[in-house]
Amino acid sequence: MTAAKSLYQALSDYAASDFYPYHMPGHKRNPAGGEMADYHRIDVTEIDGFDNLHQAEGILKEAQLRANRLYGADETFFMVNGGSGGAMAAVMAATDPMDEILIARNCHKSIYHAVILQGLIARYYYPKMISEYDICDGVSADGIGALLDTYPEVKAVVVTSPTYEGVLSDIPGIAAVVHERGKILIVDEAHGSHFGLSSHMPQGAIAGGADLVIHSLHKTLPAMTQTALLHVNGDRVDREKLKGYLCMLQTSSPSYVLMASMDFCMKFLEEQGQERFAAMRGHYESFCEKTESLRHIRIGKMTKVSQKRHALKGWDLGKLVISVKGTNMSGKELDDILRDTYHLEMEMASETYVLAIMTLMDEAAGWQRLADALCEIDGRIEESTEDEGAASVKKVVGSPLKSRMPLARAFHGEWETIPLGEAAGRAAAGFINLYPPGSPIVAPGEILDEPVIERIEECRRAGLNIQGVSGQGEIVVVAL
Amino acid sequence: MTAAKSLYQALSDYAASDFYPYHMPGHKRNPAGGEMADYHRIDVTEIDGFDNLHQAEGILKEAQLRANRLYGADETFFMVNGGSGGAMAAVMAATDPMDEILIARNCHKSIYHAVILQGLIARYYYPKMISEYDICDGVSADGIGALLDTYPEVKAVVVTSPTYEGVLSDIPGIAAVVHERGKILIVDEAHGSHFGLSSHMPQGAIAGGADLVIHSLHKTLPAMTQTALLHVNGDRVDREKLKGYLCMLQTSSPSYVLMASMDFCMKFLEEQGQERFAAMRGHYESFCEKTESLRHIRIGKMTKVSQKRHALKGWDLGKLVISVKGTNMSGKELDDILRDTYHLEMEMASETYVLAIMTLMDEAAGWQRLADALCEIDGRIEESTEDEGAASVKKVVGSPLKSRMPLARAFHGEWETIPLGEAAGRAAAGFINLYPPGSPIVAPGEILDEPVIERIEECRRAGLNIQGVSGQGEIVVVAL
Repeated sequence: MTAAKSLYQALSDYAASDFYPYHMPGHKRNPAGGEMADYHRIDVTEIDGFDNLHQAEGILKEAQLRANRLYGADETFFMVNGGSGGAMAAVMAATDPMDEILIARNCHKSIYHAVILQGLIARYYYPKMISEYDICDGVSADGIGALLDTYPEVKAVVVTSPTYEGVLSDIPGIAAVVHERGKILIVDEAHGSHFGLSSHMPQGAIAGGADLVIHSLHKTLPAMTQTALLHVNGDRVDREKLKGYLCMLQTSSPSYVLMASMDFCMKFLEEQGQERFAAMRGHYESFCEKTESLRHIRIGKMTKVSQKRHALKGWDLGKLVISVKGTNMSGKELDDILRDTYHLEMEMASETYVLAIMTLMDEAAGWQRLADALCEIDGRIEESTEDEGAASVKKVVGSPLKSRMPLARAFHGEWETIPLGEAAGRAAAGFINLYPPGSPIVAPGEILDEPVIERIEECRRAGLNIQGVSGQGEIVVVAL
Repeated sequence: MTAAKSLYQALSDYAASDFYPYHMPGHKRNPAGGEMADYHRIDVTEIDGFDNLHQAEGILKEAQLRANRLYGADETFFMVNGGSGGAMAAVMAATDPMDEILIARNCHKSIYHAVILQGLIARYYYPKMISEYDICDGVSADGIGALLDTYPEVKAVVVTSPTYEGVLSDIPGIAAVVHERGKILIVDEAHGSHFGLSSHMPQGAIAGGADLVIHSLHKTLPAMTQTALLHVNGDRVDREKLKGYLCMLQTSSPSYVLMASMDFCMKFLEEQGQERFAAMRGHYESFCEKTESLRHIRIGKMTKVSQKRHALKGWDLGKLVISVKGTNMSGKELDDILRDTYHLEMEMASETYVLAIMTLMDEAAGWQRLADALCEIDGRIEESTEDEGAASVKKVVGSPLKSRMPLARAFHGEWETIPLGEAAGRAAAGFINLYPPGSPIVAPGEILDEPVIERIEECRRAGLNIQGVSGQGEIVVVAL
């Protein structure tokens, strides 16, 4: 097997040979597997010549080096348990049990899961809201610096940039305040795997100076769901420990189909990335022109106003926040119209907007269909007669909740299931998340108060997907 | 979407519609993805109508119920982080931090990983060896009972049955001694997903009374690598906690291709399982007849002798241990001949045998090619002139090692990298595993002694895959 051959090609060649498998997987590449047999064709295990992800020395090492060259980190790992597995490994490699960690409150739930498994003490940075769009603003370097001065024992800082909705934080600024205090910076760039690969895209967190960077490849690049990369820079993180956690948090039988997909994605970016990112920039600009005439619907962009008021340093052009705030239409209604009338499936719908993800795989037609639909729908919308000041329920990050005990203690203790409406004053035992993107409204150990209960109930009435509340409206709390 | 439609069919229908994706994954099902685009076709995310694995209420709930009906457990969960993720969730749901747990020493490394993440105290059952084949015997119920009397604080017991090589333990007997002492029984049946589905296959651990059973679907059934099931019986395990851990240990973006593969596998078993398992039994018996005349090569089977001497209750007919012990050929040499001359790829090679996995997807030709090759090779083999008593290095389970500290303490402490040859008397910080199957020879906290160092060095010299020792022969130990 030559190093130059892609993993997909090597697997395809092998599948076409007369080698007979007396090994896993059990499908044996038998065509009797019917429709799924195509998927079995390149699905092997760690047989001779196909290396081992958890101790890569051959074709999988080459594939990871290809990814590494593209992104320019010191070291890059393939991951088959999603960005979730990588985010957990990053947090756990950067800390020891009982350490303190500073987390931007809008981080993905996997960061919180690592806090529980490692028994960490969590300190939070609460991002400001961008009220024009009801979404979280970026994280400010000054804010992080101030919190690190308040909590000098903090070992590592975790920031999600860009956010699910595409808002960037000032990673170089944050890296500076974190590193001058001797801490580790982890950037969950799950939503920004396409950053730093073209002058048409924003700079990424690797160039920005983060120690650990997580990329969910599948979110914005041509790779299969559940594929991700973890990048390491510098020597603030023990690489051996990191590898130990990667080995723990990922199956010992990683899918060769998923790994081939990652390798394919890297080759695709090498060969077509520059051209396609440039085209994407062009599509975006045409889309902005076409939608400039919208009277009611607004497309989220970095504006002069928000640039001054907030820490906001930019907006990912791959994330279209399509807002109907202040009109007589809700985000949910817009989502239904786009799906039912136009067969356009959005990434998510909130109370006041829908989110569309655009990538280098969208051709002109994809941008056009959306612009056309929005122009048509806009004509049917009217300004709302309701009070403009009415608060939106879609706030992942509300007011800080008081905490009665660390997350791990609440999670590991005795649980009790009670109706949400009777939970005021009780400490949560599990998470209550708004999904997507899956950031916690309430974390284990936090005391539920009337405002947060009301907010969760409003989200449920608005038809949003709340995880951690049963169909009957019950939650788990720490037993008294 | 009707419940009767398989997930694969629902995904295929959706892919064939004119719905346009403004959501993850980033490949957008664009045919410009070239060769891999076929794999992207049915790879979606949690869009309308496609449910959410971590809170299944629609098509994924139906799919899991289909699996559940087939296996007959109280509840069944799909898993996309392999049996590894399920084994960890099982251990962690059955214990609280600082609890004691009794583990058969030949368990998969994922069990040990859970011990570290949960901070458990591990007690071990050391299986006897079957010296005819240099493999571990099953676990005896009496042995487990005696250890539980020695360690009454143990909360849960973990047994791997069948072993990687196909040896079964007496699960009903073990369940009785475990349950009469009020403990939880976890059976890692990763290698026996095909058990209990036909009268031609052995009874499975679900019917045997285990509380938690892990099935790696991909190992012996027509499902893609990295797919697995977790089954729960009874109420000894808190289901809410179990779901909490499943959510932590698996990505929040599970692959729909992997999930479709699991659902496909269940439909396939429903429709063709009985017929194919009966055929497999027939193929096995023909194979045994054809290989009966072998003079030197021996195929591992349950014999009267071993039945009396050991706890052994049976041998999975899907696992052919093809032994050349006592001849002038090594397992590695046999493996090379089978691959290079016959293009037959084995599951693994040890010093004295090779292992072939046979499943319901093997047709007559697969059995025939192997039998023919073995008959030819057998003619070229001679008895060894070496001392028959020479110990084989391929022993996952050696003599018990002394432990200096719990696994978690060793893993979380300061590490030092030193040559293996200088490690006598030092406590290991990481694992040293023989792969496959990936059971630890040395676990963190255990003191390396001369015999174990010698054994590891012999394995390396024999060309076996040892994880946890670097290319330069270095290992990590707890810093002094």
